[in-house]
Amino acid sequence: MTTLDPKNDYLTVINMFSVDPSKADDLLQALMDETEHRISKAPGFVSANFHVSKDRKYVTNYAQWRGQADLDAMMADAEGNQYFKRVRELADKVSPVFYDLRASYGPAS
Amino acid sequence: MTTLDPKNDYLTVINMFSVDPSKADDLLQALMDETEHRISKAPGFVSANFHVSKDRKYVTNYAQWRGQADLDAMMADAEGNQYFKRVRELADKVSPVFYDLRASYGPAS
Repeated sequence: MTTLDPKNDYLTVINMFSVDPSKADDLLQALMDETEHRISKAPGFVSANFHVSKDRKYVTNYAQWRGQADLDAMMADAEGNQYFKRVRELADKVSPVFYDLRASYGPAS
Repeated sequence: MTTLDPKNDYLTVINMFSVDPSKADDLLQALMDETEHRISKAPGFVSANFHVSKDRKYVTNYAQWRGQADLDAMMADAEGNQYFKRVRELADKVSPVFYDLRASYGPAS
């Protein structure tokens, strides 16, 4: 379970992985494996949330980090890693965008 | 504040609005106005979360709905609406993708 709250002031990364729809579940599993075994242990990691699009063309991670330096350190450590390699084999294209969360709304009361 | 939990079984819509960086804050404000005055009152609306990218080229909404029918009804009601018009004036391109949230991770303990 993950909480989105602008007050937390985290770095938000929304990372879209384009994928052949027949490989979407394999890519999801590879991303879950990498997160469980490696990324969730990295300093400054806050959350990862994996989504599969209804048309199965995208697997998208909504991730939160304490800050850019923590994310950069984790990425520098990724090269040559077996989990990272598997993700790159399965995904056609990886498009990360870096954000600040500015506002959250629930239903009007 | 918004909670991401695969057990909720919501429809997740990640909607990227491409924007001239000089207009990112105006677009954010237009989206917040539309959400406050209209969308947050729609049946089946669960949450909207607005992000501005670090390079200011994207304003992205991470939104949750009870289901596709609720979202479709809200969109059918949007045409001609003053808030909707303002958003369309400011955004260069709107790219919604529809998802299921499949897995959430926090830091490894």
